[in-house]
Amino acid sequence: MKGKFITFEGGEGTGKSTQIKLLEKYLQQKDKNVITTKEPGGTDVGAEIRKLLVCGDKDKFDAVAEALLYFADRHIHLTKKVWPALEAGTWVLSDRFADSTFAYQYYGYDKRVSREVLERLYQIAVGDFKPDLTIILDLEPEVGLARSFNKAKSMEVKELRFEGRELAFHQNLRRGFLEIAAAEPQRCVVLDADKTIEALHRDIVKIVNEKFGI
Amino acid sequence: MKGKFITFEGGEGTGKSTQIKLLEKYLQQKDKNVITTKEPGGTDVGAEIRKLLVCGDKDKFDAVAEALLYFADRHIHLTKKVWPALEAGTWVLSDRFADSTFAYQYYGYDKRVSREVLERLYQIAVGDFKPDLTIILDLEPEVGLARSFNKAKSMEVKELRFEGRELAFHQNLRRGFLEIAAAEPQRCVVLDADKTIEALHRDIVKIVNEKFGI
Repeated sequence: MKGKFITFEGGEGTGKSTQIKLLEKYLQQKDKNVITTKEPGGTDVGAEIRKLLVCGDKDKFDAVAEALLYFADRHIHLTKKVWPALEAGTWVLSDRFADSTFAYQYYGYDKRVSREVLERLYQIAVGDFKPDLTIILDLEPEVGLARSFNKAKSMEVKELRFEGRELAFHQNLRRGFLEIAAAEPQRCVVLDADKTIEALHRDIVKIVNEKFGI
Repeated sequence: MKGKFITFEGGEGTGKSTQIKLLEKYLQQKDKNVITTKEPGGTDVGAEIRKLLVCGDKDKFDAVAEALLYFADRHIHLTKKVWPALEAGTWVLSDRFADSTFAYQYYGYDKRVSREVLERLYQIAVGDFKPDLTIILDLEPEVGLARSFNKAKSMEVKELRFEGRELAFHQNLRRGFLEIAAAEPQRCVVLDADKTIEALHRDIVKIVNEKFGI
């Protein structure tokens, strides 16, 4: 495809959305067409699926149901928004993608969904497509969760279904992202997110420039 | 499991919900604990998924997304409602189950989703579990659709996303249900639904009595 697909991954409160906005601005200055999007909820239908996933009681359904809903949202997101944009030469920056499903539903839940099930769902919903670059923002869960609860204070709809889980869940999550990155070093870059917004943005720009020859 | 799981399948307007109510009443007279339910939307979360699936524009997402959403709804329905009821010895009568997904997403769409994909999703969401009895109500699509549009006149939310498809879709659907029944004669019974409500109810009671020795 003609555009580039860059995904941002990491636990709660690692600063993904802030960094995406800054990278969008940077790429626009370099004369790229850019859109920013997110999972779940990158489309109108996806926004409805997102509500089911991120709001409400943490036990309202299990990790298998979650995985199915995430991949439904992802398939709609790709077919209706991401792939058409990439075909048109637009760069797409996404706040989360499939690595989050592996991190949350496999590592986070201590493997209650097998990796094989998630890989089958990936094949059904996504096929052989992968991001051109995945930036994983790494942070101590304690620091990220504090930021996340702070941010939720100003939200109209509290998206805290996952924040409500115990710290061990978030520690598993972090380890999951690091294992994913280690398994695919060509695609994934891990960045230390425990620094100023500006310093982290400089790290991201450096990686994007190197990767895509900007 | 101690209860029995009976599913009703068939195209639009074949009379499934009417017949389920009558069978519920009959089984209660025979001192069974019975609940009636439906797919999609047999649970609170499922009701939200149902809205996405049966309302709105027919092209808002494709058959793969539909299959993922149906199996998400199904997994939640089974784990939160059907399996606990069956374990407790309750008979569960469901207006649609997995055969509908095969009929609509595989046969109805002229195989845009492979049977293998649907079987993988079944394995992920349902496992080895199957209904004890599946009653397929068979009817000319023209007759069923006319009934269905008639019924929708009195609905607050118009659930007509599938009715909007061309007649060929509904003909494929009907053929699909008949093929499913032919492949699993132990589980499935096909009944001609082009008769009075009372006559069809008598056919159903006969089959249920024979199958479960009532």
